[in-house]
Amino acid sequence: MAEPRSESGLIRKLGGPLSAAGPTGRVPFGDDAAPLAGDLLWTVDMLMDGVDFDSLRHDWRSIGRKAMAVNLSDCAAMAVEPVGALCAVALNDGLSMSDAESLMLGAHEFGVQFGCPLRGGDTNSWSQPTVISVTVAARCPAGRAPILRSGAHSGETIYLTGPVGGSILGRHMTFEPRVALALRLAASTEVHAMIDISDGFSLDLARICDASGCGARIEAIRLDALIHADARRLAAQTGRSARDHALSDGEDFELIVVTPALSAGRSAELGLHPVGQIVPQPGLWLAEDGRETPLEPAGWEHFR
Amino acid sequence: MAEPRSESGLIRKLGGPLSAAGPTGRVPFGDDAAPLAGDLLWTVDMLMDGVDFDSLRHDWRSIGRKAMAVNLSDCAAMAVEPVGALCAVALNDGLSMSDAESLMLGAHEFGVQFGCPLRGGDTNSWSQPTVISVTVAARCPAGRAPILRSGAHSGETIYLTGPVGGSILGRHMTFEPRVALALRLAASTEVHAMIDISDGFSLDLARICDASGCGARIEAIRLDALIHADARRLAAQTGRSARDHALSDGEDFELIVVTPALSAGRSAELGLHPVGQIVPQPGLWLAEDGRETPLEPAGWEHFR
Repeated sequence: MAEPRSESGLIRKLGGPLSAAGPTGRVPFGDDAAPLAGDLLWTVDMLMDGVDFDSLRHDWRSIGRKAMAVNLSDCAAMAVEPVGALCAVALNDGLSMSDAESLMLGAHEFGVQFGCPLRGGDTNSWSQPTVISVTVAARCPAGRAPILRSGAHSGETIYLTGPVGGSILGRHMTFEPRVALALRLAASTEVHAMIDISDGFSLDLARICDASGCGARIEAIRLDALIHADARRLAAQTGRSARDHALSDGEDFELIVVTPALSAGRSAELGLHPVGQIVPQPGLWLAEDGRETPLEPAGWEHFR
Repeated sequence: MAEPRSESGLIRKLGGPLSAAGPTGRVPFGDDAAPLAGDLLWTVDMLMDGVDFDSLRHDWRSIGRKAMAVNLSDCAAMAVEPVGALCAVALNDGLSMSDAESLMLGAHEFGVQFGCPLRGGDTNSWSQPTVISVTVAARCPAGRAPILRSGAHSGETIYLTGPVGGSILGRHMTFEPRVALALRLAASTEVHAMIDISDGFSLDLARICDASGCGARIEAIRLDALIHADARRLAAQTGRSARDHALSDGEDFELIVVTPALSAGRSAELGLHPVGQIVPQPGLWLAEDGRETPLEPAGWEHFR
């Protein structure tokens, strides 16, 4: 029987042959960014019309902005400083010169705000929906290593950098990548594991757990305090619970941060909101009213 | 009136704002690879099903190979050494796990032969035709700069690294990027300008001329000796001349090399075939039977 399709399955299968190709330093295959050379890392994200954006609703400048922003968020996830980008596009034949320019400038101008201008690219056109792929290179600040998914330990605290859920109502196009916050965190406290929420809080938290060989307990009362107002608005439309949206909606691009427990004052000062703890037993658990129930990681998985 | 669409027009328009973002060293925006940091450069190419390959005719491994190979050819064009790659894909929903794996391994395994393994990527799926985008980073060998399009001078000789035309009959999927040859040339002779033929010999030669502020005279008798057998086979099908195919067919991925004139023995030793000279007056000229006629650059231009 053929193996069921999944992005994570594909990454697992490719991890063997690709890792065998030579040393990649201490950054494992499949983390948010890959080692490039010296203190440089790089990451790539591809966005497709009708999947990651809707050209009938979103203007080309904001689409370019998003294509850059998702990569900057990957840099945030490893606490590395973006330094420059390349952009490849397959433009639908219906785009005008000015649309194409808006798309590229949207990516470039947003990148510039993060020290990450476009340095070049590849322009193509075809009769199919527009695709844009941005590659970003980043530098790890001197004296420390990139923050991985794999460094979480039992007993440590799980924080979020902001409320989650319902980003599809608009924030998935306008979010602010947490680059400055991530760099500040890495410089000022002991961050053991980090990831950005691209596919869903519970799914991305499960990736930290898988990489770190542990599990996670989410405290319902703390989670409920981190449900975004958009998740509540969306829940009113979908009939699902706002908590469910907070756990499984993709493209929040807040960070999940794992550190040894901080005082309430210190975590507030750093912009971190506690939401649970790392536990030894694998899997996700929801703690509510003194009981713990298993929680299935949920979110967006491509190629399934 | 809206500006007519063209890839070169878009690159021209973007060159201003993008170059204003900060120093890029001496490599201008729009060359085959862009400066990254230190002695590193990078380049990206996106291939689309139905445009750059045909998944009904080509197997996924060879498609992955091509996606890597076109980037390696860009490295050859600047005589820099590829060091690693990222790959982003939008996979059509009809692909199996094994198809996806073949695509990625095709890129990876071909890259490994050039010291350029895949280091990571982004996997997506959608209902539209498959898109694959590969980014390659490369290092400029110590003690010299990347070879640009802009260094040609009047009186210098134009060489090709092999016969051209008709690649669509198969070579566009199986070509060997001229990386080793380019590195050998740059180390052993004075190469003043170089480009790989991705869009067409005359069109890519015109790019060297535009960047260098000069023109080029092609000697018909020498060109005719460099018409690939595939160009003759294709001409028999299309009714166009084999010479026309040699001048305008894309995806040959041979190099156009400009150097001060070499002796016949030396150029043969280096694997270079003379095809014309750089001239002061802008434009392309075909010299035949003692007469020079203007030649319109022709080839594949995306986004027109």
